[in-house]
Amino acid sequence: MTVSPLAPERFPTLPAVAGVRIATHAAGIRYEQRADLMLAELPAGTTVAGTFTRSLCPAAPVDWCRNMLPTGLARAIVCNSGNANAFTGRAGETAARLTAETVAGALGFEPTEVFLASTGVIGETLPEATLVEALPILAGELTEVTPAGWAAAAGAITTTDTFPKGASAVMRHDGTSANVVGIAKGSGMIAPDMATMLAFVFTDLAVSAEVLQHCLSAAVEKSFNCITVDSDTSTSDTVLLFATGCVGAQDPITTTADPRLHGFVDALEEVALDLAHQIVRDGEGASKFVTVRVGGAADDVAARTIALSIANSPLVKTALAAEDANWGRIVMAVGKAGQAANRDELAIWIGDEPAARHGVQSPTYSEERATAHLREPAVTLAVDVGVGTGEATIWTCDLTHGYIDINAGYRS
Amino acid sequence: MTVSPLAPERFPTLPAVAGVRIATHAAGIRYEQRADLMLAELPAGTTVAGTFTRSLCPAAPVDWCRNMLPTGLARAIVCNSGNANAFTGRAGETAARLTAETVAGALGFEPTEVFLASTGVIGETLPEATLVEALPILAGELTEVTPAGWAAAAGAITTTDTFPKGASAVMRHDGTSANVVGIAKGSGMIAPDMATMLAFVFTDLAVSAEVLQHCLSAAVEKSFNCITVDSDTSTSDTVLLFATGCVGAQDPITTTADPRLHGFVDALEEVALDLAHQIVRDGEGASKFVTVRVGGAADDVAARTIALSIANSPLVKTALAAEDANWGRIVMAVGKAGQAANRDELAIWIGDEPAARHGVQSPTYSEERATAHLREPAVTLAVDVGVGTGEATIWTCDLTHGYIDINAGYRS
Repeated sequence: MTVSPLAPERFPTLPAVAGVRIATHAAGIRYEQRADLMLAELPAGTTVAGTFTRSLCPAAPVDWCRNMLPTGLARAIVCNSGNANAFTGRAGETAARLTAETVAGALGFEPTEVFLASTGVIGETLPEATLVEALPILAGELTEVTPAGWAAAAGAITTTDTFPKGASAVMRHDGTSANVVGIAKGSGMIAPDMATMLAFVFTDLAVSAEVLQHCLSAAVEKSFNCITVDSDTSTSDTVLLFATGCVGAQDPITTTADPRLHGFVDALEEVALDLAHQIVRDGEGASKFVTVRVGGAADDVAARTIALSIANSPLVKTALAAEDANWGRIVMAVGKAGQAANRDELAIWIGDEPAARHGVQSPTYSEERATAHLREPAVTLAVDVGVGTGEATIWTCDLTHGYIDINAGYRS
Repeated sequence: MTVSPLAPERFPTLPAVAGVRIATHAAGIRYEQRADLMLAELPAGTTVAGTFTRSLCPAAPVDWCRNMLPTGLARAIVCNSGNANAFTGRAGETAARLTAETVAGALGFEPTEVFLASTGVIGETLPEATLVEALPILAGELTEVTPAGWAAAAGAITTTDTFPKGASAVMRHDGTSANVVGIAKGSGMIAPDMATMLAFVFTDLAVSAEVLQHCLSAAVEKSFNCITVDSDTSTSDTVLLFATGCVGAQDPITTTADPRLHGFVDALEEVALDLAHQIVRDGEGASKFVTVRVGGAADDVAARTIALSIANSPLVKTALAAEDANWGRIVMAVGKAGQAANRDELAIWIGDEPAARHGVQSPTYSEERATAHLREPAVTLAVDVGVGTGEATIWTCDLTHGYIDINAGYRS
């Protein structure tokens, strides 16, 4: 496995989040000689928020988490890689419940406080016996999380990611300081596995579940929901945010009007965007990190649809892979998006180079300058569709032979 | 250029359509040493129907045809390859009008009776002078169409298609017999050109423009609108149907209740579907001709959305390229389609092999049998989503290294 050329130089040194204890284990669910199971224990009173795949064929752990979320309380998150426990019917539900019961039994709380995520092949029953044997071992090995612990956890949840993903930020307000730390996995949907976008974010700040959900939903909308690798949506996408409450426990944040929330929201959004960008940078076969900005749309939703049409167009993505300033394909992608666009006012920039304006090629356009920008590892396409003030930004990667190599390979 | 492995053995021997005269010419618009301009002249009284791209950034010839269509009358169709005359602003409009005026002047009818299509690169001004010089030459070379003439016309309108496309059928009713003949081009959107789906269909049957449009819209809905290569929609897609009226001129079909229409509709649909399938068989890099059938949906529109989600999924398409029976990706594509589907009743077939039923892998599933089917050049995926009686069929091709080779190549 070659590490993506767009990978960060190294896994970051992530700070502790007070109250979080973590263990990882090589349970042998599918992979040999690597950790494939992660358990994080959280202190009593930890609040939780979550967002999940919009797939109408969600995996069993997604059903489980959705059912448990309304209590707003969590004591553990368990994640395995190698098997998605998706499209496994009744057997999948049973395996999910058994996983939660085993952890709850070993640690002395309720199964309803255990959150679950699974990533890997679809349609194969999760090997319950393996989990029931491994989970008590993990429970016995839990330790307060260290930088090495975060790195191990980020590695355990990967499938065919080419690098583990982590990010952190600090929230400060008057005398209060809290950490926000996240790990994530995903690079689109990767063979041999049905891959998945998973992210687990932890903070030691005391925040009510309701406010936490409000903050998470907003942060996800601006980060994980603004990336696309190949337009394919997993059955298992899950983002969970846990607040242990160890910082500010005597005065938790319980309203969105709390002034301390600004710093927290900033830190959360920073971590979410960092993780989301790392997922794009690990996009299957990616050789370019691509920012698509759309302005001048009827509204922000229309801008987003147009930006996704550009970002998901195989023709735009292959042109980027070839470092080919074929901006006609951007016109095509705008045209097919189905949102209001004024062809005769359309403007397109490749990096800072104006390629088109007023519906024709820009008189000053230099294909040489545009191509020079496209040779960079991070490129920007900007479009103004000339009808309003709606705007959106989407991040994606290019479409290369590497994507075909990864996804047209056999699973076995 | 390697001919697609899915190409028909040879170009068909197409019969004459009474009244149609055709000429082709190597005008040198972009390509060297090949015909790139086609002119078909039609007798006075020829009726016309058309359907066009839904792109909001349509090319100048699409605007022109849309404006001329309401008269329902046509005397000529001109098509050039090598330049799409798209995103060319006022200059593009002028070039389109000049083309129509030149043909009309040479042949002695009105410019408003000349229909236009252009296919090729986007954003470059159509070389008017070249056309103005070449078109009178073509007008002088018009001859009653022969099998060789159809083949030449089908070749002249190609861009980087790997084979020319033609089809015919005969309409018979009591003593009446009329031909329906079509030519088409397209294989998705092909570099070095911004490609396009163009089809021109001719019949000698006398049919009013209104009835003709009714028949064409219905036929396109079941054929050209049911194919996808890469989900990208051209700025220039055009299907035009011309009825010269040489057969049955004394008693034209002027109502959809006319019993003679059944045979015509059958013949038209046969030609449209044949051409549409040929376009898929020339899909960029295609190694498999893929039929996606969806049943059990809430309605036919929902079934179509789900079938397109499967047919456009890069993960499904790459699995097909690998002859990998990775049906979990079909579950994923159903789940992301956003249409009602009952995960716990979902059934999937690969060819005749039941892969999944009642939301889990079929107990009799043989991956070996499924894989044997996927090794065939024509494969079928069928899905029942278990909520209703809506159904749809979509045709597509797989996604291979060939697609990347073709589309990530430079235009020059």
